[in-house]
Amino acid sequence: MNYINGGVCAAKGFRAAGIHCGLRKNKTKKDVALIVSDCDCSTAAVYTTNLVKGAPIDVTKKNIANGIARAVICNSGNANTCNANGIEVAEAMCALVEKHMGIPAADVVVASTGVIGQPLDIAPMAAHMEELVAALGSTAAHSTDANEAIMTTDTVHKEVAVEFEIAGKRCAMGGIAKGSGMIHPNMATMLVFITTDAAISPALLQKAIRADVADTFNMVSVDGDTSTNDTLAVLANGMAGNPTITEEGKDYDDFCAALRALTSGLCRAIAADGEGATKLLTAAVTGAVDNDNARRIAKSIITSSLTKAAMFGADANWGRVLCAIGYSGAQVDVHKVDVDFVSAAGEVAVCRGGAGVDFSEEKAKVVLTEPEITIRVTLGDGDGIATAYGCDLTYDYVKINGDYRT
Amino acid sequence: MNYINGGVCAAKGFRAAGIHCGLRKNKTKKDVALIVSDCDCSTAAVYTTNLVKGAPIDVTKKNIANGIARAVICNSGNANTCNANGIEVAEAMCALVEKHMGIPAADVVVASTGVIGQPLDIAPMAAHMEELVAALGSTAAHSTDANEAIMTTDTVHKEVAVEFEIAGKRCAMGGIAKGSGMIHPNMATMLVFITTDAAISPALLQKAIRADVADTFNMVSVDGDTSTNDTLAVLANGMAGNPTITEEGKDYDDFCAALRALTSGLCRAIAADGEGATKLLTAAVTGAVDNDNARRIAKSIITSSLTKAAMFGADANWGRVLCAIGYSGAQVDVHKVDVDFVSAAGEVAVCRGGAGVDFSEEKAKVVLTEPEITIRVTLGDGDGIATAYGCDLTYDYVKINGDYRT
Repeated sequence: MNYINGGVCAAKGFRAAGIHCGLRKNKTKKDVALIVSDCDCSTAAVYTTNLVKGAPIDVTKKNIANGIARAVICNSGNANTCNANGIEVAEAMCALVEKHMGIPAADVVVASTGVIGQPLDIAPMAAHMEELVAALGSTAAHSTDANEAIMTTDTVHKEVAVEFEIAGKRCAMGGIAKGSGMIHPNMATMLVFITTDAAISPALLQKAIRADVADTFNMVSVDGDTSTNDTLAVLANGMAGNPTITEEGKDYDDFCAALRALTSGLCRAIAADGEGATKLLTAAVTGAVDNDNARRIAKSIITSSLTKAAMFGADANWGRVLCAIGYSGAQVDVHKVDVDFVSAAGEVAVCRGGAGVDFSEEKAKVVLTEPEITIRVTLGDGDGIATAYGCDLTYDYVKINGDYRT
Repeated sequence: MNYINGGVCAAKGFRAAGIHCGLRKNKTKKDVALIVSDCDCSTAAVYTTNLVKGAPIDVTKKNIANGIARAVICNSGNANTCNANGIEVAEAMCALVEKHMGIPAADVVVASTGVIGQPLDIAPMAAHMEELVAALGSTAAHSTDANEAIMTTDTVHKEVAVEFEIAGKRCAMGGIAKGSGMIHPNMATMLVFITTDAAISPALLQKAIRADVADTFNMVSVDGDTSTNDTLAVLANGMAGNPTITEEGKDYDDFCAALRALTSGLCRAIAADGEGATKLLTAAVTGAVDNDNARRIAKSIITSSLTKAAMFGADANWGRVLCAIGYSGAQVDVHKVDVDFVSAAGEVAVCRGGAGVDFSEEKAKVVLTEPEITIRVTLGDGDGIATAYGCDLTYDYVKINGDYRT
């Protein structure tokens, strides 16, 4: 398996585009994206568990209930959530794809991201749909355009693609993601669109992504707020020509491994680009009672405001890590907790057996000044492991969110 | 019932003191407090649910297992948590009270607050114990000294006292609290010491505080981090001369009403002084399925980083309130949610029936620029009510916690 370029255009038969249609005032900011496949795709998705859901989620659920889709349309700048006419507008977005591409509206995945509770005007999208379709293409730059169009407070593109083999056939899979604030997915994720030319049945595709997100997107937290619009959708058009994966086995495992390589890369990208973040934090837990307890502990650490602020200040305040382990709700013997801070600059042991050990504050400062920090927690309770992804808490997080709407 | 001055010295037979003994480098910062009663007290306490617990909690639990105590000793600057010799040091603190006051070590409530994981040196306290005892007195200023000695990043004193009657006898009750960061109590609270001269059995006292904290301290959140050292202890010495309360009934209800007046005042004080806070936020929920669901919703709102940052920026971004309601885990009909922002400057309706309504951004800005904001949520699901207390998320929270130890 190799990482390659191309994002959602890496797989055969997919085209993408992103343009500015006028939903945002800033004319240099693209605000609507389109991704289309040359043929029907097995399609699966997972969504936010928030009871307050964006209208596009209801429409997408209905459209892919048969496991088939061919296009994705997504705008930024407005979440189309908590609006009286939300469903109507989300359906109108799908209808625009049908009108201009001939793809049935019922085969379109629709998503929106941005401010909640302000009516989404369909007019700017309708007026620019022809332009959007004309912009479609299959190069890496086209994927990047689509990625830009779904970004909100994101500061960097989040695209990953891999090539891999299934039953001797070369396949590709690529994804784009957005997500910077209101990120604390639960059985779902931010906006992530993944395309692949591998052939796989809708049922197996759904199974693969459900299993994957438990260890990837559901382990990312920027600020503990679970969005109303989280959506991860995967479109598999089968153009790689491998025998269609319809049951578990080697081919399925190969597919899942490629998916994991892709999604873990996107998770790291989302966490590192958390609103205001200066550092990517990874909590790596081993030795927990089981994986579920390991996940609770890893996520509790990565979610702790105090730990996040300490990492911002390059302060080896490991007591906050112990504290977060203690209130995680996980089963854990607190007298068997070891903690190390690890980065490219080295590692420093700060806690053994639940109690502090002498360490060089100077060395710790050097280790914690790196842009990527791993908080390594080694427990003595069993074989459970988990990794969670987060970022530091900074002045800029407050700045960005103190006045997001203006 | 009236609010009065005097803090923990408001009730008959209690003396208090707070001095600098040298645990902190800053010589102007008091760091050890002592509260003593002239006679034995019915004593009850609730503690953090964090599995990582401060050593003083284990010692206090043992000492008040019989429902009796006569003194409280508490230091700041070091939490005496995650230390190999923590129990030993906490017991040594109690022994100092016995040596210098003649009060048995087993009748002492002990607590510590500050940095986790650094050994607590008993020597500075031992060297200054005589001075601490000599400083004891029963004026309001003595309570304030004790309050100062338990503060960490707190910026204001938190003292409340009330006078009330039980069976015709005038009683008093007063408390001091500390708590600014690492505040998200769960079945317990920050450090809160309450004294009263009302006569009540230990069992009824324990019952009263358990019931009270569910609606008061457990509804406060500054940063979602549940401390390792949360302790609320109440000492009732009976010197008011009322017939001892040993069962539920009017006297018990009168006692609970006084307790609630005291604790709700301390909760507001803790939330308003949250680390870096510029605003006290109150989430007032009515119409929930039941009180438990109302509590989940109120606490979810008050804990949302995005909502807190919006309040800092006086931004009426009510979508974040809806979002927090949606992921609270509470049972709620999201199409029957009304939201209003309320302050001394007026009120503004922002959401009706789960969807946005037109409102004046200008007026909202004025309402949200006040130092006390109520987020009023009216549901259509039942009779459940709850109030939660929190604060905004500011640059200073990050600053304070980015380098707390230096």
